[in-house]
Order: sequence, then C-alpha cells, then structure tokens
Amino acid sequence: MTTSFGPSYVRAIAPYVAGKPISEVAREFGLDEARIVKLASNENPLGMPESAKTAMAQAASELGRYPDANAFELKAALSAQYDVPADWITLGNGSNDILELAAHAFVEKNQSVVYAQYSFAVYALATQGLGARAIVVPAVQYGHDLDAMLAAISDDTRLVFVANPNNPTGTFIDGPTIEAFLSKVPRHVAVVLDEAYTEYLSADKRYDSIAWVRRYPNLLVSRTFSKAFGLAGLRVGFAIAQPELTDLMNRLRQPFNVNTLAQAAAIAALNDKPFLQKSAELNAQGYQRLTQAFDKLGLEYVPSHGNFVLVRVGNDDGAGNRVNLELLKQGVIVRPVGSYGLPQWLRVTIGLPEENEAFIAALEKTLATA
Amino acid sequence: MTTSFGPSYVRAIAPYVAGKPISEVAREFGLDEARIVKLASNENPLGMPESAKTAMAQAASELGRYPDANAFELKAALSAQYDVPADWITLGNGSNDILELAAHAFVEKNQSVVYAQYSFAVYALATQGLGARAIVVPAVQYGHDLDAMLAAISDDTRLVFVANPNNPTGTFIDGPTIEAFLSKVPRHVAVVLDEAYTEYLSADKRYDSIAWVRRYPNLLVSRTFSKAFGLAGLRVGFAIAQPELTDLMNRLRQPFNVNTLAQAAAIAALNDKPFLQKSAELNAQGYQRLTQAFDKLGLEYVPSHGNFVLVRVGNDDGAGNRVNLELLKQGVIVRPVGSYGLPQWLRVTIGLPEENEAFIAALEKTLATA
Repeated sequence: MTTSFGPSYVRAIAPYVAGKPISEVAREFGLDEARIVKLASNENPLGMPESAKTAMAQAASELGRYPDANAFELKAALSAQYDVPADWITLGNGSNDILELAAHAFVEKNQSVVYAQYSFAVYALATQGLGARAIVVPAVQYGHDLDAMLAAISDDTRLVFVANPNNPTGTFIDGPTIEAFLSKVPRHVAVVLDEAYTEYLSADKRYDSIAWVRRYPNLLVSRTFSKAFGLAGLRVGFAIAQPELTDLMNRLRQPFNVNTLAQAAAIAALNDKPFLQKSAELNAQGYQRLTQAFDKLGLEYVPSHGNFVLVRVGNDDGAGNRVNLELLKQGVIVRPVGSYGLPQWLRVTIGLPEENEAFIAALEKTLATA
Repeated sequence: MTTSFGPSYVRAIAPYVAGKPISEVAREFGLDEARIVKLASNENPLGMPESAKTAMAQAASELGRYPDANAFELKAALSAQYDVPADWITLGNGSNDILELAAHAFVEKNQSVVYAQYSFAVYALATQGLGARAIVVPAVQYGHDLDAMLAAISDDTRLVFVANPNNPTGTFIDGPTIEAFLSKVPRHVAVVLDEAYTEYLSADKRYDSIAWVRRYPNLLVSRTFSKAFGLAGLRVGFAIAQPELTDLMNRLRQPFNVNTLAQAAAIAALNDKPFLQKSAELNAQGYQRLTQAFDKLGLEYVPSHGNFVLVRVGNDDGAGNRVNLELLKQGVIVRPVGSYGLPQWLRVTIGLPEENEAFIAALEKTLATA
C-alpha cells in the first residue's frame, strides 16, 4: 500500500510474523483444536506453574485499578534474587518490550546497531523502527562470531545485541568468550545480552552475567518470564543494568507496561525452583528424543542450548514451507524460518513427550511421502 | 545523572509520574491499606465487571502460551461493535501504547506534533521520545482551542493530538466543532482523537467519531478499556483508523503487546452494556455531589465531562501539593497536577458515594485548618 504517512523507515518495515495460534490453524485447516500440537513459539509445555496461578488469583480482585507503575514488589523480588539494587531493574511487557526500549533509549536515526545473522527478529525490527542502520554480522556455524561483531562496531554504533543461547538457532557462547568480548567493546556502546533461554542451560554451561553488569556500565542483561517460567500469555520480562542505562529506559517506558497479574505471577514463578528444574529436565529429555529422531531420519540440526531445535528438512529453498504445510495439515504447528534466511529449516519447540512423538510421527510421514 | 548514552532528546525526558498506588501510600504514611481511598487515576470505582471476570477465568488455562498476536476474537468483537473491518483496528497495551505507536508511526525527529496546553502528559512524552518538536497551543478555558491548533499546524507537522473529553481538565468539544476541524486539517497530517473518557458522555453530548474515520483517512480514534470498562489493571486499548494508518502502526506494534487475559476480558466488557450504564449513572451522581461540595466550599472547578474533576484548592502555587499532602495523611489519594502547569489545582476521580464523602470530609478538614 502506498501512503503519504509516516517516516520512510517505518514504511519499509515488514511486520513480525508470529507463530500461528492453535485457534487459527483449527479454523484454516478444519481441525479439532484439542488435537492440535503447537511447537512453534518456544513456550514451556508445562504451561504456567501452579504457584503463579495461585498468586494471580490473589491479585485478581483489584483489576479495575492501574498496575503499580513502579512494580515495587516484583522489583523487590528480583532485587533479592539477583542481588542488585531495585533501581538496576527495568520491567517490560515481555522482553520484546525490553529490547525495543533499549534500542529506543540508546540509538537514534542514522546511528548503527550491530547484531548477528540468524539472531532474533526483534533486533532488526527495533533497529528499523528507529531509522537506524543495521550492521548484520555473518554467523559462524549458525551462531555469533563475536570477534567479527567487535570488528564491525563503527563510529556511529551505539548498541550491540548478543543473544545467548541464540534464537532461532539454539547456539551458545561460553562465559569467558562473552566476557572477553565485553572487555573490548567501547564504553559508549551499549551491549544488550539477551538471555531469554538462560534457564535451560545445563549446569556446566552457566555463567554469572549479573557479575558482569556490576563491572560493565554499558551492559544490559535481558531476561523473560515467557520461556522456562511459563508466563508467555501474561507478558513480563526484565532487564538488569546499572542506573545509567536503566534511567534512560525508564524515561521511555510506558508507566503501566506490566499488568497487575503479570507482576503477581512473576514473583511466584521466580521463586518456584522445583518448577524451573522440572522444566529444564523435561526439556533435556525432549532434546534427546528429538535429536535421536533427526539422526535416524538423517536430518541435519544445529545443536541447541534452548528449548527448541533448528532442523534442516530439505535441501531446496522450498523445503521449510512445504514440510511446514504438511505438518499443519496433520495438526502440528512448528515455525518456518524463511524470514530468517533459513528456508530449508524449521524451528521446533521441545514439547511434552506426547507432543514430541506427535511431531516426529507427522514429520516421518511427511518425509516418507515427499 | 550525566551519561554518555542515548540521544539528547531521550536524556531530556522527565519520566511520567504515576498516581501513588495504595500500597505505597500505606507504607509512606503508616496507614491501613483497607482505609485508604484512591481517587487519583480515573479508574472505574466499580472495578472490573463480573462478566469480564468470568471471561478471564475461562481464558486462564492457556497462559503458558503467547497471546494471539492478531487478537482474532477481540478484533471480531470490536469490528461488530463499531461496524468497521477488523483491519481498521489496532490493539494496544492500554491506549498509552496506541498513543506512543501513533507518534512513532507518523512522526520522525525534527518534525512537529501539535497538542493543547493542559492535555494528557503522554502526548508530550511521545513527542519528546522521538526527538520531535512539540507545538503546544494555549488552552482556552482549560480546553482545546481548535482554531488556534489548526493555525499552529506547520509544514513539518505530521500529527495533532485532540483529547475529548480532555484529561486532566475534563473539558469537552462538541461533535460539529470537531468535524469542522477535521475537514480543514491537511490530509497528510494525522489526527489522533483520544476518546479515553467517551463512555462517560451524557446522551446529548455524544457524536459518531467512527463515521468520521470512514470519511477522513488521516483520522485515528483512540479508545481504552481502562476507564469506564473497568480493566485498567489488565491493559488494553484500541485504535480505529483506515488501513493506511493502521498498517503503519502494526509494523511497529510489539506482536504480543496485549496479554491473553486482557483480550478475553475486553470482549466481555465490550458487550456488558448494563455495567457501562451503571458506571455512567454512578459517575453522574458523584459529579453532582463533588461539585455541590466545591460550590459550598467556594472552590473553583472546571466543568467536567469525564470521571474526574479539576478543582482549584488555593490561590498560590504551593496549594496543590500542600493540600495533596494533607489529604494523603488522611488516607485520601488524589492527583496533584503541578506537572501540567496547574499547581493550584488537584484532579479528583469520581468514586463510590462513600469514597466521595471521605474525600469531601478530608478536604473540608484540610481547608478549615489551612
């Protein structure tokens, strides 16, 4: 559509394509909603923890009121959990909001933003939405090349996005490598370390990014309650950074960006260690099962450290969409990633055992008849 | 705090000051939360409608999933209610999100935005956040001067905000006057008509702004579920405009900006006409009571068409904050409006009868001892 409205850089944006909701697939393909398996948006297949449901029910009596704009109790809980002052915390309507706020707070038109090829779509959208210039650094083995990203930082760069683990590829960078990178980034360039999937890391992979926040005033760590914590439908994410960055983001933050129920549920989920552990274990088992099936089918996949696997379903650029359509017809929703420049691949969220089996069966059937 | 980060226009923003939450006032003044009366944020004193509570409970089983990014069902309900196609609707995380999205979608740095003196703080924040220039048109009798706003539109103006009724003053512009204004605004300048309080208008004041949307491709009507609909804590607002504007906003909209429970509750609230009517009646009675008390106390107030009244509590510029503090000590939270350039005034939300009485008693006591 041609229009006379809006900046040219806004008109140039291609809107984000979300995973298809179950209800939409049911309508489109004439399927029974109850039989649809959705492995498309990297949600926790266990759903919301019971602890959070209880907390939410208790907070439901005051929904005619605006939420607490300063989120006193949730910030206190995060402050205790991560051992940082409350004013180092910024809350977002999901971590999408954090990523947008960071770009908006640190970057202006014609400045540049560095991020990796095959990294999260919101980095590109946030950059485009500001009329800023994207410096997209080629991936190495589907993951970040931090040396090349460091070298790509130019005079007008104000922000670098690093995702660890990365979505949609699942790649991981070890702690010492990230810290070496942080020590070399110019101090006036903000680094957003997006750790949406950090709760899925195995014990031997963990590192203390909050310690780095104490050391690097240009570092912001972004986290979400939408993945392992099981609260995607409620919308809450957060950032930890020193006040220099936090203060700027809070000038742009919509004061009531995090709703009342999300605040209450997040406190409960944050403290529900058994749920997190169960989620991580289930995920590790599901990863074994899915990759075993891919091996058996002779499909290439990227070793993943998140709750999803990127798998190559064919050697032609129509493969992703073609296999995706066949899976949809069988009531299995996964994510085609052609928009990421990965048209031969699909991203599959690790589900419950029975969901994984349904996906594997549908995939086997699709590939056998291809 | 001095910082090397961020655009100068972001560093210059003074963050929005929200109404104090009840829990914060209780902590600060050592009061019992249950005895505090909050008339500070123009919420519906009836709270959330029962119909919405029921709908919310039914939607609560899928909160581990992301919300429907396209909000199929809520858009269908709004489409039916307002007789516009679904792709004329943009949803926001409250109408704050709509106002920010509109500014971001239609305006870039160094272009200008026109709005009225004493109009909603978010217009200024959204303008500043883009590094755009605010053209603030002096108010007439605390309301919009549309002729002057029209005359103030300059070559680089891309957006005009009009609030009707206006917050925080409660002023109202009649339908024919707004339509005459719309017919004269240049076609490349978007007009956001912010109708957050429209459900409180008496029958003789109502006008059909959606009909204007069909006629003017540069008009966007903004509405919220946070006021009369009683869903402030859940966060949902919406815009109606032709696809030229809607399409641009959707390129910037965070895909999961409206949470699952807000979508479900909004559908129920939208269709709950008895609740809306009860809310409007309660408001009209409360308005009579508050203004009667102000008359008796000899206090000037601005005739209001919303669910709040702006009242002058003294003739010196310390009056608003001084009286506010005395009210807080008595457990009554209202809104000082010094940040709006109205330091002699307070904005009081119309509450339940007993809340109005508590406020009046506290105000009488404060003024008697002043």
